[in-house]
Amino acid sequence: MLSLRSPSSERWIALVDAHLDEILIDHAHCEKKAAGVAMNLLFSYVDHVDLARAMTEIVNEELEHFRLVLDLLERRGIPFRKLAPSSYGQRLHERIRKDEPARAVDRLLVAGLIEARSCERFSLLADHVADAELKAFYSGLFESEARHHSTYVRLACNFLPEDDVRERLSHLAVEEAAIIDRGDPFPRMHS
Amino acid sequence: MLSLRSPSSERWIALVDAHLDEILIDHAHCEKKAAGVAMNLLFSYVDHVDLARAMTEIVNEELEHFRLVLDLLERRGIPFRKLAPSSYGQRLHERIRKDEPARAVDRLLVAGLIEARSCERFSLLADHVADAELKAFYSGLFESEARHHSTYVRLACNFLPEDDVRERLSHLAVEEAAIIDRGDPFPRMHS
Repeated sequence: MLSLRSPSSERWIALVDAHLDEILIDHAHCEKKAAGVAMNLLFSYVDHVDLARAMTEIVNEELEHFRLVLDLLERRGIPFRKLAPSSYGQRLHERIRKDEPARAVDRLLVAGLIEARSCERFSLLADHVADAELKAFYSGLFESEARHHSTYVRLACNFLPEDDVRERLSHLAVEEAAIIDRGDPFPRMHS
Repeated sequence: MLSLRSPSSERWIALVDAHLDEILIDHAHCEKKAAGVAMNLLFSYVDHVDLARAMTEIVNEELEHFRLVLDLLERRGIPFRKLAPSSYGQRLHERIRKDEPARAVDRLLVAGLIEARSCERFSLLADHVADAELKAFYSGLFESEARHHSTYVRLACNFLPEDDVRERLSHLAVEEAAIIDRGDPFPRMHS
């Protein structure tokens, strides 16, 4: 699916079943973080106008999703609160190379892989949960995450030749699969 | 005007006349920075849902303005590029108190004062420039900056009593007036 090398495990589905409210709260934080990642890329590479314009659209869409999850929490009477994040984002960010233009490529590809994994997990949630509202909600978010994945990979090709980008994406996808497989022992969208 | 304690000087109008292209490029960066400030507040105080929702709207509007300025630059054939910022934002941020909840109040009020100053300078630009497109452009941006100012001041009252917030706003407005009056010897939206 997209560039991913492994499907999510049964372990994660079990966490969802036992802690759905906490997964929903973490989902709001994930949308916020996705907006933050796009904003940071906009700041770092603002003179790449193609990238800058694409980032403004992704920030807006992620913040729209953030509001939608807050609405969902409110309708369900689930108080929104701060949560310690899963280790997934941090572990992926440790793989980002330090020197430009490799750094730009890696930041974009890591963002793209996170979008791909969110996409896969939203799809799993839509299939798995019995709740009709949640099923529709997660089906509705699927498309934009897949599109963001493609945008990030396309933009990475502005910094290095496409063959190098594809090879690096394969490498990072293997690492991503290992990280998500290891997971965390607490319920998060990417645990 | 709004909470401001002094009008912009003739010195700044002279910089605009001599370096309009550079002011326009800096304007794009200012919209980006305004979006970044709102995003940082969203991250810091995300569990204040009223604030978090308001910040998503401000981020979206500032990024929309950023795109509008990029469009304007493109139509005029002015290449967008990175620019060293004016010292205004940094000097104002040095005034922010360190301990919560005073820190939240100051961050919001400083953001509100920057919006107020932008509002005043957009109004000056709309009055001053002969160019009909720029006149319409800056008149169009005026309203949202004034609204953002009010939003920031209102949100500050979630952290301390309104009287304390008003007193602090007056104090910071005096400092803002001194900072903008000192300015920078190079052309920027807030120099």
